[in-house]
Amino acid sequence: MSDDREKLCPTPHLPSTVQLAHGGGGRRMRQLIEGVFLPAFANPTLLARHDSAVVDVVPDVAPRGRVALTTDAYVVKPLFFPGGDIGRLAVFGTVNDLAMAGAQPLYLTAAFILEEGLALAVLRRIVGSMRDAAAEAGVAIVTGDTKVVDRGKGDGVFITTTGVGLVPPGVDVGPHRVQPGDAVLVSGDLGRHGIAVLSVREGLMFESPIESDCAPLASSVAALLAAGVMLHCLRDLTRGGLASALNEIAMDANVGVLLEEPAIPVREPVRGACELLGLDPLYVACEGRMTLVVPEASAERALATLGAGAARIGQAVEAHPGVVVLRTRFGSGRTLDLLAGEQLPRIC
Amino acid sequence: MSDDREKLCPTPHLPSTVQLAHGGGGRRMRQLIEGVFLPAFANPTLLARHDSAVVDVVPDVAPRGRVALTTDAYVVKPLFFPGGDIGRLAVFGTVNDLAMAGAQPLYLTAAFILEEGLALAVLRRIVGSMRDAAAEAGVAIVTGDTKVVDRGKGDGVFITTTGVGLVPPGVDVGPHRVQPGDAVLVSGDLGRHGIAVLSVREGLMFESPIESDCAPLASSVAALLAAGVMLHCLRDLTRGGLASALNEIAMDANVGVLLEEPAIPVREPVRGACELLGLDPLYVACEGRMTLVVPEASAERALATLGAGAARIGQAVEAHPGVVVLRTRFGSGRTLDLLAGEQLPRIC
Repeated sequence: MSDDREKLCPTPHLPSTVQLAHGGGGRRMRQLIEGVFLPAFANPTLLARHDSAVVDVVPDVAPRGRVALTTDAYVVKPLFFPGGDIGRLAVFGTVNDLAMAGAQPLYLTAAFILEEGLALAVLRRIVGSMRDAAAEAGVAIVTGDTKVVDRGKGDGVFITTTGVGLVPPGVDVGPHRVQPGDAVLVSGDLGRHGIAVLSVREGLMFESPIESDCAPLASSVAALLAAGVMLHCLRDLTRGGLASALNEIAMDANVGVLLEEPAIPVREPVRGACELLGLDPLYVACEGRMTLVVPEASAERALATLGAGAARIGQAVEAHPGVVVLRTRFGSGRTLDLLAGEQLPRIC
Repeated sequence: MSDDREKLCPTPHLPSTVQLAHGGGGRRMRQLIEGVFLPAFANPTLLARHDSAVVDVVPDVAPRGRVALTTDAYVVKPLFFPGGDIGRLAVFGTVNDLAMAGAQPLYLTAAFILEEGLALAVLRRIVGSMRDAAAEAGVAIVTGDTKVVDRGKGDGVFITTTGVGLVPPGVDVGPHRVQPGDAVLVSGDLGRHGIAVLSVREGLMFESPIESDCAPLASSVAALLAAGVMLHCLRDLTRGGLASALNEIAMDANVGVLLEEPAIPVREPVRGACELLGLDPLYVACEGRMTLVVPEASAERALATLGAGAARIGQAVEAHPGVVVLRTRFGSGRTLDLLAGEQLPRIC
């Protein structure tokens, strides 16, 4: 009878670590969901606990909006780093991908792959961080999944988040909009996320700790749209950093990009750490920074809307289509290619 | 200059295994995407290659439909098994979760976590299988992500798929609809997926090979709706099998479920394998089977629509709310509880 009572009034008695049975579809999994995930992400859609979340994505105010979809797996190592953790990253990273399509983020889904033996306290901390990040970004986590893999077949926690957002009517952001003559901007200083993660991983100590720039970008994009800025293309500067993002845009838009090195904002501690580590800050990942390609006529208004930290760093050009060229502080030109190899594995 | 030519006209020269650089955001990642993922999943939305896919989810025919969202991580071991593989599972499993909300599946996203050293040939085979499965289920894979983890920190391939579907106007499927007196059906025979996976994992040989039941359920659900069957609740029988699915429904709907053991379809080879392995087929995962709770008046029509293999196995009752009871072939009653531990880890 105690079994039935437990089933009707579940009071999860969770062990201190994740076990294979937590992924098995039985009582342990229900306890994990009820003890960890539901309390953190509580919202009516999630609490309906069906196989799918059923949501409204077409508010009456935007009946002709289109829906943006994006997904990202997060495998950052270590799970916690100065300025953030894998949970914060998994929320903001996906919110930011939606924002890069000009979309207002509405809903997230979250799928967890846990390694047997993970401390429940670690999972709780990550889930709490996701709850806070979702609140900060104004999105609801409406459905999820948990799988457990045997010890040595995972690495603590991997999280895949998928985002659904609404692209307001008339908004069309993408490489196909980019024109020679457009201004190229960045929303803030570069490279802090990558260096913050690397500093923990490699046990590096800096004079002043470098914190990740991990942050949501959707409110900035909404402010830009509200200010009447014409957004041609947006790209967040994650894996591969600014250089890779601009290479992708240049190739997909078939324009050249010409950057002015002295205009690119990199803080001194990041520059110093990069020199020490043999890294180029233009290739180091950020998690709360974007590059913007806007018509010349919108550039000043965009910078004013983004506020301190944003900078105009170059322009799209007709010359060298598909290629990004950096004009150095000494006046010479240097091609910023896509990285051939790996600079920083498992940075996000 | 050969570098620039390669950038403009990418002809991927892929090595034979996955490397960390394939997840790094640089040239290698672009080559992996262009060499493996884009050719398989080609569709205009995916080929736009932006951070988010922008899609229509509100066709003119169903302006008042609601959107269903679901996500699942797939960690099945081994990656290939009789009747399917992780790719097929990742497509059908998520399509099926949408169908369980009465939704018509429209779009999938796919996030891959690859282990360094994975053979590219294995990845190609899985991706090809996903392409075929998506075509079979009538969904488009519109965006994705790839991460690579270091050797020994993953297990070949993990895939997370997220599905977006449209719930037709007037359709409302879920445990809240279940009433005492409703009929409980299953769409086909039980337990083949779990036994098929286990047979490979444990090196078991059966007289006749047992193939996974892995299949999409959305067309069956659409046919039921078209036939005018009132669907109160649907649940696919994955982790934890029929017993777990019905326990979830019984608890969430606060009804009892009474099953008639002789009516539950289990094929002889599966029954034999379960006896050999000490497993209860009612707890073994399927990947192409569902249980349906429908009003008594709809039961016959539902069975006729589902066709051969479907069976009426019991009913929802007022007695023992939250509890599933099996009336055995000998007339005695046995409570089918949620599993306390793990029966078959990494079955999906």
